[in-house]
Amino acid sequence: MPQSNPVHYADATPDVRAVYDDIKATRGVDDVNNYWKHIANHPPTLKRTWENAKEAMAPGTLDSLTKEMVFVAVSASNGCEYCLRCHTDAARKQGMTDEMLGELLAVVGVATQANILANGYQIPLDDDLKD
Amino acid sequence: MPQSNPVHYADATPDVRAVYDDIKATRGVDDVNNYWKHIANHPPTLKRTWENAKEAMAPGTLDSLTKEMVFVAVSASNGCEYCLRCHTDAARKQGMTDEMLGELLAVVGVATQANILANGYQIPLDDDLKD
Amino acid sequence: MPQSNPVHYADATPDVRAVYDDIKATRGVDDVNNYWKHIANHPPTLKRTWENAKEAMAPGTLDSLTKEMVFVAVSASNGCEYCLRCHTDAARKQGMTDEMLGELLAVVGVATQANILANGYQIPLDDDLKD
Amino acid sequence: MPQSNPVHYADATPDVRAVYDDIKATRGVDDVNNYWKHIANHPPTLKRTWENAKEAMAPGTLDSLTKEMVFVAVSASNGCEYCLRCHTDAARKQGMTDEMLGELLAVVGVATQANILANGYQIPLDDDLKD
Amino acid sequence: MPQSNPVHYADATPDVRAVYDDIKATRGVDDVNNYWKHIANHPPTLKRTWENAKEAMAPGTLDSLTKEMVFVAVSASNGCEYCLRCHTDAARKQGMTDEMLGELLAVVGVATQANILANGYQIPLDDDLKD
Amino acid sequence: MPQSNPVHYADATPDVRAVYDDIKATRGVDDVNNYWKHIANHPPTLKRTWENAKEAMAPGTLDSLTKEMVFVAVSASNGCEYCLRCHTDAARKQGMTDEMLGELLAVVGVATQANILANGYQIPLDDDLKD
Repeated sequence: MPQSNPVHYADATPDVRAVYDDIKATRGVDDVNNYWKHIANHPPTLKRTWENAKEAMAPGTLDSLTKEMVFVAVSASNGCEYCLRCHTDAARKQGMTDEMLGELLAVVGVATQANILANGYQIPLDDDLKD
Repeated sequence: MPQSNPVHYADATPDVRAVYDDIKATRGVDDVNNYWKHIANHPPTLKRTWENAKEAMAPGTLDSLTKEMVFVAVSASNGCEYCLRCHTDAARKQGMTDEMLGELLAVVGVATQANILANGYQIPLDDDLKD
Repeated sequence: MPQSNPVHYADATPDVRAVYDDIKATRGVDDVNNYWKHIANHPPTLKRTWENAKEAMAPGTLDSLTKEMVFVAVSASNGCEYCLRCHTDAARKQGMTDEMLGELLAVVGVATQANILANGYQIPLDDDLKD
Repeated sequence: MPQSNPVHYADATPDVRAVYDDIKATRGVDDVNNYWKHIANHPPTLKRTWENAKEAMAPGTLDSLTKEMVFVAVSASNGCEYCLRCHTDAARKQGMTDEMLGELLAVVGVATQANILANGYQIPLDDDLKD
Repeated sequence: MPQSNPVHYADATPDVRAVYDDIKATRGVDDVNNYWKHIANHPPTLKRTWENAKEAMAPGTLDSLTKEMVFVAVSASNGCEYCLRCHTDAARKQGMTDEMLGELLAVVGVATQANILANGYQIPLDDDLKD
Repeated sequence: MPQSNPVHYADATPDVRAVYDDIKATRGVDDVNNYWKHIANHPPTLKRTWENAKEAMAPGTLDSLTKEMVFVAVSASNGCEYCLRCHTDAARKQGMTDEMLGELLAVVGVATQANILANGYQIPLDDDLKD
């Protein structure tokens, strides 16, 4: 028994179709990814998640590639295969090279190790870092 | 009883002093942060951690500010106050504005939520994302 | 080489069989899940884990469905496929609909995002939330 | 140096005030929590986060108390003090007793332990749990 | 408002006192730690947690110091200050030196970084590691 | 599209080959694991990661088996299948029995549960655990 089944366009309600249409138009793709088809099992989640992503991932003071790489960093840290592969692919399409991916994961590793050491030694805040 | 005590320069062994000196020279600061003084309780960890950070955080195909922001993203995700404050400060000194921090944390939030939904619905890989 | 092999009833020691029998009687099932067969490689873990689950998952001031949904929420957050699928199945058998699962995962997402923002901005406790 | 400063109503821009007003009206409170005042440093995050929370935490097929308890469960799992205290308070105001909190945390503990064992023994999916 | 209040011996019910007495006798201490006094707000959790800890932390095929150090490793990884300080103290009383703590945290760091890289590069299992 | 492709010895640059040679010599194996072949996509990461592992996993004040078991504990906690299987295998080759694995995972479970309860009840530090 699958955890969830995809909601295909042909079977979707008008509100789900409207989100699919907006994703396809915004991204210039012919069909939406499995991600959207599965979260469409709960239409308010589909709508809210898409609106959040559309707003938060749009280029702003950070460019789109940087945002995709932060998405990859978080997904590697959390161990989510689907999101990792999906957003690595997106980042590569925007110009992320193997070397950039290597440097990105190196920073994630160094930061996580620093988090562990800061916890492990219970390092007190430097005076200029206090509230 | 503190979890660990800082190792001050005056009391440090020559190998610890050598790392402190390199940190100060590399960063152009008068003294090293509490982080280094506490992990100096285990000199091989101090040396290895500094060499890792020096290499991984140096500008490469990703610039230094982007790397600092990824460090902030990971530390926010892991909830490490020390690292978060320390590297937010570093990122701000390199030009991160409130708006950039806001966009950064928004991406971390959106990515983490996507990780949860991908897990929760056990979303299968799209064909073009498979090995 | 598998990480662990299942311990089948026919090959099990009396203390393992006693736990299997109790699981089958308590849940009204013909056989125990792979979960129990694999943790039976360490009989004290099998016994303790079953007793913990039996006590903590029994209806109390929280009903059984609510408890199963919290189990699903935690497993989605931690990204554990086995537990997620197993307890989603259990929750569905007790009446969890697609809409309820959608709302549940939405709360997990909103809460996790709030955790990230509370960390990222280092939000101080409101006075009435302090000890 | 504080990680962030609160944005008070008197100093807020009209779009931030509009969110504060909606929070106060929806919740029947005189002032908003520190959480909102700090994320207001990035107004789009304030607006999006509030709209997400307002929608996801509203009573639906899950009642409000259940949703607050799931929020507490996630925050305990992630170790976020601010969110934990804030939503424990909210859950208590809606009727969560010490016994309910005890049972809730017990389920979080049992589920997390199951996640660890399922990973540690690499337990294969039972046939009826497969896609 | 504190998240929870301690349950002192003088105010405790007989079943809570029985657990406190067993902790004191087993560990040879005059009073129990805050940990036990706070989880006593839910007596079944107190009893179950103590019995679990008593069994799992007792010397077996792993000695007591090794178990305490694994406890420290997990708590550093999860960022739990209370447990980290409490079990570092316990491990030190059993002989853990600064050098041992340093090596322990180094392994936690190296392992976590390996987890991130294994996720980030989606490294396939070597043939001899497959089921 | 695979997330990454292995770098085989025949195709590797001299600096990558030098690391492979050192791994093979240090461990007395004929070929390196997939782990090293994939992270070799970013040669500085390969070199740094190997040097870190070589130093941190070498027997010191903690013996090699204890270090492997801590690696297993961390990987079970983080849910990383590759690292878990790889280092369980390594630990078994050094003498870890089923019973030792069972006790190890039991400690990880008990520690994680304690972390959740310490968070959930916001347990204050005992006086002798304070800085």
